[in-house]
Amino acid sequence: MQRALSVTRADNFPEWYQAVVRDADMAETSAVRGCMVIKPWGYGIWELMQQDLDRRIKNTGHDNCYFPLFIPLSFIAKESGHVEGFAKEMAVVTHHRLKMINGKLQPDPEAELEEPLIVRPTSETIIGDAFSRWIRSYRDLPLLVNQWANVVRWEMRTRLFLRTAEFLWQEGHTAHSDAADAMSETRKMLEVYRTFSETVLAMPVVTGEKPENERFPGAVNTFSIEAMMQDGKALQAGTSHYLGQGFAHAQNIRFQTDQGDWAFCHTTSWGVSTRLIGGVIMTHGDDDGLRLPPAIAPRQIVIVPMLRDKPEDAEVLAYANALAADLNDLTALKHPVRAYVDAKPIKSAEKRWNWVRKGAPVIVEIGPRDAAGDQVTFIRRDALRDGDKVSMQGVDRSKFILKAPALLTEIQQALFDEAKARLDANIIDGVTEFAGVESYFGAAAADDDEAGAAFKGWLRVAWSRPTGEALEAVIEKLKRLKLTIRNAPLDQPAGTLAPCLFTGAPSVETILLARSY
Amino acid sequence: MQRALSVTRADNFPEWYQAVVRDADMAETSAVRGCMVIKPWGYGIWELMQQDLDRRIKNTGHDNCYFPLFIPLSFIAKESGHVEGFAKEMAVVTHHRLKMINGKLQPDPEAELEEPLIVRPTSETIIGDAFSRWIRSYRDLPLLVNQWANVVRWEMRTRLFLRTAEFLWQEGHTAHSDAADAMSETRKMLEVYRTFSETVLAMPVVTGEKPENERFPGAVNTFSIEAMMQDGKALQAGTSHYLGQGFAHAQNIRFQTDQGDWAFCHTTSWGVSTRLIGGVIMTHGDDDGLRLPPAIAPRQIVIVPMLRDKPEDAEVLAYANALAADLNDLTALKHPVRAYVDAKPIKSAEKRWNWVRKGAPVIVEIGPRDAAGDQVTFIRRDALRDGDKVSMQGVDRSKFILKAPALLTEIQQALFDEAKARLDANIIDGVTEFAGVESYFGAAAADDDEAGAAFKGWLRVAWSRPTGEALEAVIEKLKRLKLTIRNAPLDQPAGTLAPCLFTGAPSVETILLARSY
Repeated sequence: MQRALSVTRADNFPEWYQAVVRDADMAETSAVRGCMVIKPWGYGIWELMQQDLDRRIKNTGHDNCYFPLFIPLSFIAKESGHVEGFAKEMAVVTHHRLKMINGKLQPDPEAELEEPLIVRPTSETIIGDAFSRWIRSYRDLPLLVNQWANVVRWEMRTRLFLRTAEFLWQEGHTAHSDAADAMSETRKMLEVYRTFSETVLAMPVVTGEKPENERFPGAVNTFSIEAMMQDGKALQAGTSHYLGQGFAHAQNIRFQTDQGDWAFCHTTSWGVSTRLIGGVIMTHGDDDGLRLPPAIAPRQIVIVPMLRDKPEDAEVLAYANALAADLNDLTALKHPVRAYVDAKPIKSAEKRWNWVRKGAPVIVEIGPRDAAGDQVTFIRRDALRDGDKVSMQGVDRSKFILKAPALLTEIQQALFDEAKARLDANIIDGVTEFAGVESYFGAAAADDDEAGAAFKGWLRVAWSRPTGEALEAVIEKLKRLKLTIRNAPLDQPAGTLAPCLFTGAPSVETILLARSY
Repeated sequence: MQRALSVTRADNFPEWYQAVVRDADMAETSAVRGCMVIKPWGYGIWELMQQDLDRRIKNTGHDNCYFPLFIPLSFIAKESGHVEGFAKEMAVVTHHRLKMINGKLQPDPEAELEEPLIVRPTSETIIGDAFSRWIRSYRDLPLLVNQWANVVRWEMRTRLFLRTAEFLWQEGHTAHSDAADAMSETRKMLEVYRTFSETVLAMPVVTGEKPENERFPGAVNTFSIEAMMQDGKALQAGTSHYLGQGFAHAQNIRFQTDQGDWAFCHTTSWGVSTRLIGGVIMTHGDDDGLRLPPAIAPRQIVIVPMLRDKPEDAEVLAYANALAADLNDLTALKHPVRAYVDAKPIKSAEKRWNWVRKGAPVIVEIGPRDAAGDQVTFIRRDALRDGDKVSMQGVDRSKFILKAPALLTEIQQALFDEAKARLDANIIDGVTEFAGVESYFGAAAADDDEAGAAFKGWLRVAWSRPTGEALEAVIEKLKRLKLTIRNAPLDQPAGTLAPCLFTGAPSVETILLARSY
């Protein structure tokens, strides 16, 4: 069967991923190591994600602010856990001027900064500095802010959207008078992420707590949403951290209680990034390219007029434009429908396949016969094929318009259901010995050779939650199988747990083991 | 008379500006030299500006993208005019890791970059690099993109919003097949800026072309919108550049024409920034603080319930909430009305003055008598005082709701009219000798002492448009009076011009002379 991409998921999942990004014209690598250029289709998806999530963040009481891109080196040094976690991969600004020296433009030695500046890898320290000024009294709490920003982490191996040196994200930062309130915020925002991911991205996730070795540098607890990609790997799609009083101590974020004494705040932070776009691709894409949930499709219904440089073209185009205008007056998924006429002077078959690869949820093709007969012929991108053939449907124009909002809602739901069924079917219980883990995952694939790796789901196993060296031994053992602990799901099974898979001690919870991005 | 700010415009305009920014809680300086923290009220204004301008940019056919924060040093070096203009003030990244050496965290000498990276001061070069890959044929033109981003220019003397090392902006970048199309784009976006500034910010501007010494580094023509602040100074509020083929040559942005041969593109760029917020403050603010045009007021109608810890509080609060709900169902200035109940547990007088300083367009005060009598008592921020007293109006609740959209539209217009009258009255014609310039502006104020400087408008004078050294002599002469040429207005007077004010040669156009930010 002829596919719209040159490589299939089964043949080579990593190459398939790159092909989708490239052929859907979403992003590309740039001349700057590890930094990407996000192209209009990719950025349009991000804008829709932003708009929806921003509303959810504001509805839960948070205000948007903007904090400096640069962080003084001394700030980073203040929180020791934070230093350990981030010091290895940061862009450091050391000069503030260039100069032509011996015919070569270079940093001016006379313009060296007294204190180097770090390009923010995350903003706990610079925002904490502001919090220490803004918070005086219990009346100022909780303090709930968010920012949309670019951050930089110097990554050695990068992949578009999934891991790039610079990426775009939102980071929420809050301060509270006590641990309970801060923890409640941490969990509330995790739930915002879950709802957003499932209803807007149609990407089902498992919410849970990360093991101590996977915590955010400086955090007391880190929670995540984990999504299952179509190669079975887990993608950490968002995190929410309870930071305890560590950052508050490091930056003197204190308040006067209603009793008149002084106390340190409890803080949280939480973020999601352009990585989510990678998650959407690997959750919904197929061998013909991207499939976009209508909620984040920059164009939901693309109308391709079949123009042939003939007199009837004018009528076809007029019909297409009128159809788009009528559709754009409708509301679907709580927003105005986004219909679009692609009148570019290229062959209509080429246009169709471009939009298939881009993942437009509905593609309408209008020929002279449709125009004359008040008909609409359309393709549902989520159900593109009937066997090998492209599945086209013809309906009356008026009926199509009447049903368009329901159609988009149905596609949104169908994509979720498909992904949810895959997730549920591939979380595997019942393994109680480490040998069972080894036999399920088999020997680790050789490095850098992920082509054709067999699909493996996640194992849900019971453990005693070892810490320190005992945990390190567990991590090491898993690493040999290229496995990581994703999280301990918030939703735990009822009943008695098997003994710890690793230590044989009584178990306290189940955790998910998986290969991951 | 008691004022809500501690300093008046007349006493000390620069200090007044700082007081407005501080007391309206819009922004503050940060621990990082020259970088600001934009607080919720300031950022909320920026978000509304963004939303509106973004729509205008998209409606004129531009797509949003995102390009890397970092620019390889070699890119900057390619366009010689560009180097000259920007090399003096850029943040330079030289290392990608920190290391603890002798107990001190510092840039790791082993992690020095082979080629330093510049934090973008503007993105012509990095976007040009992408354009050189994206453009192949005349069919790819025009290529019209925009990005919303942070940029960094190392500034020695900074002022919140007006001049900061890091600022937020949008930068449009386009490529065209010929000069006429590129110039038409340049002028079209200038007009978008003018309309946006006048209708959304209620800030009247003069559109015109900058003299050659004020052109963007590397540009062939630079156009600007210039606004008059309440101290008479000009603020360059947005620029649009025709870049000719210079950047296209430097970065090999070429296309195959419909004749099959190769040609270099003509490019443009245009931008506005968070500086506009400074312009809004200095255009509309008064001695009681900020006055916001409703189109960019994060809260347009603020309802202050007068709570006194008494049983009737519940009724007052319920009445206030119901009023806000009814108002939020309305549409004004093409968007849902933004009404808000300020129920914070502080004195209502304090709340009133907070909102006066923040510039909320309408402030409603609800006491038990209003609630019982179905009344609304309100203040129009644009007409706060009647003599020394605050001017309050009482109306029936139903009438207030009915008139609210018209009230907001009226305030938007009133602020524009006031600023427009000031601009028109203070562009002064008739000076034809340099002595007239000297006598109008008087001796230059001593450096750093702008306190109490007398209001001076702009002079519109005729000139012969000298270039090169002759122009430099003019600039030098003006500099002694602290004057600059703002632009040569697109809208030129009819009739014969006086001889050139500077050279006595026949004039070709009029220009505006002013002190400026």
